[in-house]
Amino acid sequence: MKKSPILFFLVLCLCHIVFAQPARHYVELPVHGKLFDTPHKYHRVDTAKYNDIPAAVKRLYTNSAGLFVTFKSSAPEIYAKWCVTSRKVGLNMTSIVNKGLDVYIRNAEGQWQYASSKGTTKACDEVKLAEYLGEEEKEFLVYLPMYDETKSLQIGVPDGYTIDPLPNPFKKEIVVYGSSIVHGASAGRSGMAYPAILSRRTGFNFVNFGVSGNARIEKEMAHMFADLNPDVYILDCVPNSSPEQVASRTAYFVEYLRKKHPNTPIIMIPSVVRELSFFNQRWKARNRQQNEQWKAEYDKLIAKGVKNLYYLDDDYLLGHDHEGTTDGTHPNDLGFMRMADKIGPFVLEVMKKHHIF
Amino acid sequence: MKKSPILFFLVLCLCHIVFAQPARHYVELPVHGKLFDTPHKYHRVDTAKYNDIPAAVKRLYTNSAGLFVTFKSSAPEIYAKWCVTSRKVGLNMTSIVNKGLDVYIRNAEGQWQYASSKGTTKACDEVKLAEYLGEEEKEFLVYLPMYDETKSLQIGVPDGYTIDPLPNPFKKEIVVYGSSIVHGASAGRSGMAYPAILSRRTGFNFVNFGVSGNARIEKEMAHMFADLNPDVYILDCVPNSSPEQVASRTAYFVEYLRKKHPNTPIIMIPSVVRELSFFNQRWKARNRQQNEQWKAEYDKLIAKGVKNLYYLDDDYLLGHDHEGTTDGTHPNDLGFMRMADKIGPFVLEVMKKHHIF
Repeated sequence: MKKSPILFFLVLCLCHIVFAQPARHYVELPVHGKLFDTPHKYHRVDTAKYNDIPAAVKRLYTNSAGLFVTFKSSAPEIYAKWCVTSRKVGLNMTSIVNKGLDVYIRNAEGQWQYASSKGTTKACDEVKLAEYLGEEEKEFLVYLPMYDETKSLQIGVPDGYTIDPLPNPFKKEIVVYGSSIVHGASAGRSGMAYPAILSRRTGFNFVNFGVSGNARIEKEMAHMFADLNPDVYILDCVPNSSPEQVASRTAYFVEYLRKKHPNTPIIMIPSVVRELSFFNQRWKARNRQQNEQWKAEYDKLIAKGVKNLYYLDDDYLLGHDHEGTTDGTHPNDLGFMRMADKIGPFVLEVMKKHHIF
Repeated sequence: MKKSPILFFLVLCLCHIVFAQPARHYVELPVHGKLFDTPHKYHRVDTAKYNDIPAAVKRLYTNSAGLFVTFKSSAPEIYAKWCVTSRKVGLNMTSIVNKGLDVYIRNAEGQWQYASSKGTTKACDEVKLAEYLGEEEKEFLVYLPMYDETKSLQIGVPDGYTIDPLPNPFKKEIVVYGSSIVHGASAGRSGMAYPAILSRRTGFNFVNFGVSGNARIEKEMAHMFADLNPDVYILDCVPNSSPEQVASRTAYFVEYLRKKHPNTPIIMIPSVVRELSFFNQRWKARNRQQNEQWKAEYDKLIAKGVKNLYYLDDDYLLGHDHEGTTDGTHPNDLGFMRMADKIGPFVLEVMKKHHIF
């Protein structure tokens, strides 16, 4: 009788090991979806090197928007352990897109198909990302948190299964410079920002340089982007720029990129017509002035003889039923799908014209 | 010199009154979007009266899903003060849909058009809902928090403007009994759950009886719904019901409603094919069994001679690109729009056939 508590404890431990906690191992994988080398693996930009860009922009380039890992495994369950900051989740977004992970699996047709997504409000969390997957080898793509800094990330499988990193499945390099919309607010999960949708849809790397509440066409940003050698530049940087900033900054920005990269197509995208602006008279005027000024700058650059410059002449990128946002400014997943439907074909047409593919 | 701190303080107070805090007044408005009289204004069901329904369901009917207020005003700014519980926001939803408010304005074409939405994580909050609206008289519709209990709600305007309550703009009564999907997870805001979309689109009251994680076809629920006298019953209650529950409970549920309301159309909707189920083999089997059983029950009821019973024979209600959910189960705004596109025309066809309009 005296031994039974100990026996009970041992049986409990054994049960715990056998049933509750199948032993598993974790690996750290290479990260894709960025174009700069960075000292911190999950930052988008080396903010020490580009010290003269605005402070807020530097902080936002520590967010892992657009970053992802890819691997193959035949494990029937996939786990993740990751850490972000302890910042609060934004009111206009889910914990999934803000701090969580979004999982795609390559399907029988070779397309990346949504499989699972998990959110968290913790600074560090461990979750089962997907389960009951069978044991056929599959390719996985896991998007990182969109609106937070990823401090660490490991992917896990039960013991007896392996995880093998895969190269970036997307080809070419397309810089997408933009505001919170490019950044990904208010997608429901990281895979639904429009650059991510376009990458999966086209097979080309649409690289997320979105910076929430920013992207004001500063000359330091042009200098930074000119250090890259991408196949296309997409400038979707009107939403937070005043009409005056558009007027005073656009020519320098475009001409600097043009000088450094004479043949690289530059695509100018107008601000979406904010849903707020249909009733909010102040936004109505500002939104119209922003886009009129942006178009005027394009016209002037073309008149000056700037080559390989394109303008997507449609600002109803969210559709016409007024349901494409979560808060009047930021696209919901319906709005992002509509943006992808309009921006994607236009970019592909430009790329074809330039024999990029 | 001695008096200047006091003077400074008085000037500061005056400035605060004149500039920072335009005086405003608040009113409490009648609530629409529910079919039962309830002792608590913002509950959907009198849970004391229907004491035998499951405890979790009772708690969920204290959530204000589908409820809204309508009013007219010519105020250029609209405010709200409201209280909910201190429960945490769900990982798969925004603070806007969970605890916030979603504002529509009737546009020049007579349609309810999205205008603004605000979230909160506080138990009580006060916000400016919309601004710079001009001074033309407009009709407003404000949806209440979808996934929380609304304890109180007042709408405010600057002094000198009035708020006049409007009657419910939607006609007829359509009961929509369902799970978290009907309830509204993971819409980005309360106006995007499919019953709300359908009400605005058709002008008919699609009344939200969604209960997250529930709707298991219990006989007590049939008894409760039979106390109403609606124009249509929609049963979208498969997602959380096991195949066995579908098999053992559907006949009683439908036949009870049929007995009490011989001519009222009853529409059976299958579970959406969960996006999780394409890779998760366990969900794949369960999802298929649930819907096969539901269809079999329909076939048996028809064979028994039950009249005015309809089945929407399409379970790809989220589309075919696999992007229509936030977490593999709950529709995002893209998924809800697709559900509305499929369910709406089917319901209207049934209503026409029955000369309901």
